[in-house]
Amino acid sequence: MSTKIGRRSLLKGTAIAGAAVAAAAASNFPAPAISQGKMQLKLATSWPKQFPGLGTGAQRLADRITNATEGRIEVKHYGGGELVPPLGCFDAVSEGAADMYHSAEYYWQGKSKAFNFFATVPFGLTADEVNAWVYHAGGQELWDELSADFNVKPFLAGNTGVQWGGWFNKEMNSLEDYKGLKMRMPGLGGEVLRRIGANALLLPGGEIYPALEAGTIDATEWVGPWNDLAFGFYKVTKYYYWPGFHEPGTVLTCGVNRGVWESLSAADQSLIESCCAADNAAMLAEFNARNAGALDTLINEHGVQVRRVSDEMLKALGENSADVVAEVGAEGGITQRVYESFSAFRKTAVPYHERSELAYGNARLLTA
Amino acid sequence: MSTKIGRRSLLKGTAIAGAAVAAAAASNFPAPAISQGKMQLKLATSWPKQFPGLGTGAQRLADRITNATEGRIEVKHYGGGELVPPLGCFDAVSEGAADMYHSAEYYWQGKSKAFNFFATVPFGLTADEVNAWVYHAGGQELWDELSADFNVKPFLAGNTGVQWGGWFNKEMNSLEDYKGLKMRMPGLGGEVLRRIGANALLLPGGEIYPALEAGTIDATEWVGPWNDLAFGFYKVTKYYYWPGFHEPGTVLTCGVNRGVWESLSAADQSLIESCCAADNAAMLAEFNARNAGALDTLINEHGVQVRRVSDEMLKALGENSADVVAEVGAEGGITQRVYESFSAFRKTAVPYHERSELAYGNARLLTA
Repeated sequence: MSTKIGRRSLLKGTAIAGAAVAAAAASNFPAPAISQGKMQLKLATSWPKQFPGLGTGAQRLADRITNATEGRIEVKHYGGGELVPPLGCFDAVSEGAADMYHSAEYYWQGKSKAFNFFATVPFGLTADEVNAWVYHAGGQELWDELSADFNVKPFLAGNTGVQWGGWFNKEMNSLEDYKGLKMRMPGLGGEVLRRIGANALLLPGGEIYPALEAGTIDATEWVGPWNDLAFGFYKVTKYYYWPGFHEPGTVLTCGVNRGVWESLSAADQSLIESCCAADNAAMLAEFNARNAGALDTLINEHGVQVRRVSDEMLKALGENSADVVAEVGAEGGITQRVYESFSAFRKTAVPYHERSELAYGNARLLTA
Repeated sequence: MSTKIGRRSLLKGTAIAGAAVAAAAASNFPAPAISQGKMQLKLATSWPKQFPGLGTGAQRLADRITNATEGRIEVKHYGGGELVPPLGCFDAVSEGAADMYHSAEYYWQGKSKAFNFFATVPFGLTADEVNAWVYHAGGQELWDELSADFNVKPFLAGNTGVQWGGWFNKEMNSLEDYKGLKMRMPGLGGEVLRRIGANALLLPGGEIYPALEAGTIDATEWVGPWNDLAFGFYKVTKYYYWPGFHEPGTVLTCGVNRGVWESLSAADQSLIESCCAADNAAMLAEFNARNAGALDTLINEHGVQVRRVSDEMLKALGENSADVVAEVGAEGGITQRVYESFSAFRKTAVPYHERSELAYGNARLLTA
């Protein structure tokens, strides 16, 4: 099943397939295919075409643009591996072998660590906050500058919301329980786990279930109830922990080849920009709707034991996350400027969130 | 100053100006103005044209559609009172005197109380949750059915996020402090306040500041730090309380005359739908960005004392809110079906929010 492949099977924990991309990108910056006044734009993604939320979101974005232009701009969606390898979509767009990509920016951190801040970082911004920063507090301008060096014009085009803590075979009662724990967690979150003594592992998505079953790993994170239910982790683990700290609001990006972008009329640029923003709203809403239903199913149909990560652990994870993210930000150049803008915004956003959404949510539980 | 007028001066607490609208709407369902292949759509709103967030949001939506069609569909924005009275925009669109409105659905609760659920209700859904319900859990279909009776096709087109508890001249230490308190709070929130002994008053926005200054009222709510700072309430009150319970995620709506809607091509319908969804994302992001900055200004430049509403009060407000909302929902007909869909979604959304955004936000404060 395509959903058994999973985004990270193709992505996290695998090297960026630069050579394959270079081979695929035979020519630089070709004009998009145009015939009889119609333009076809190739959208290469990092997901299996039907992968819930991400692949289906890329398709919905392609449909929005195609439908709104009555097919004058036809966006043709290629799932990961169809046109170029899943992690090759950024290079393909940069080099002109594809016109647009749909992916997550942390995959390009090998090119610049600044990209992490336009996806998500441990103990970073929520979905609503990253939208506020990018749309209205200087984030987009820095992102444009960063991406221009790679010949890309980037847009927010979706968000998973707060990801979950993960699946464990034992109760996690103290920091000691992390010592030596073999847990699948890629990226900066994995680095944080290493600092508190865990053995953080990279593992493709399709290999997680058998690894848990065989005991090769003790625990894993994935996305959230909707995607995690589909993978069936509840069958081979005992506890589902919340909240996650590692990906508090992962952005999905639509990046457009700059040559293609600049060849478009101002009207078509405006249309594509609005379609990306529309899907940004629609995808987060879908994750929230499906996650809420899937959590109910996990608990009430499958008897999953959900557990809260303790304050002691969250505090240690928070302190180590701040260190890891600050080290990324200390790189200098644009990475440092992005980190400083992100951090300045976070500094006002956290006390605001505390007194608005967070306080309201806590108040609502008093009579829930 | 137009921002001194405020949306509620024109809206809440004033009767819907039906007669004026009927006079303005001389003909039923006229085709929109079309000349030389171009179509002009009149967008009537409930806000002063430049009112921050709401008026500027309506303008941004108008610009999105106009720009994406290169002016083929020109959306002309009329501020409240320019074409029809602010609260007359729904009737104007229903009757064809305007093509689109930008407003909040609770203003039409005199027509059907079901409209409240598509704006906000006390202790109801957050912005992200109402998006999830409307886009992906049956809300849009019910809304379409409700609005079709009034010749309107409705879309989500913005959100203020969680509104704030309000401005007080004394510390609110127990439920007793609400007894006899003269507080400006319209709508269902005002009804909840009445049930705990307060004297909830309707008062146009422009009259709030002088009423506070003169001591005619003891307290007021408005929107949140961004809009409240502009009104200067900090100059005439002592304490700013959080969180609000009465409007946890107020939806702004773009409603289109159904005759106009059905006259559009599928492509233009798709384009307008995406532009509304885009502004839904952009407006919430703007409120979150500006509110975070304005809270910082209120505290650090104006020395405002911010206080948390106590759990005792929030619990009483929550219990009374549940009663008030259930009574609305017991009306039967479509109102009851909307309430049941809303409540079923809320029942899965609250435990999900508890374990995702809420838990993450609380965790983040441990090391903030």
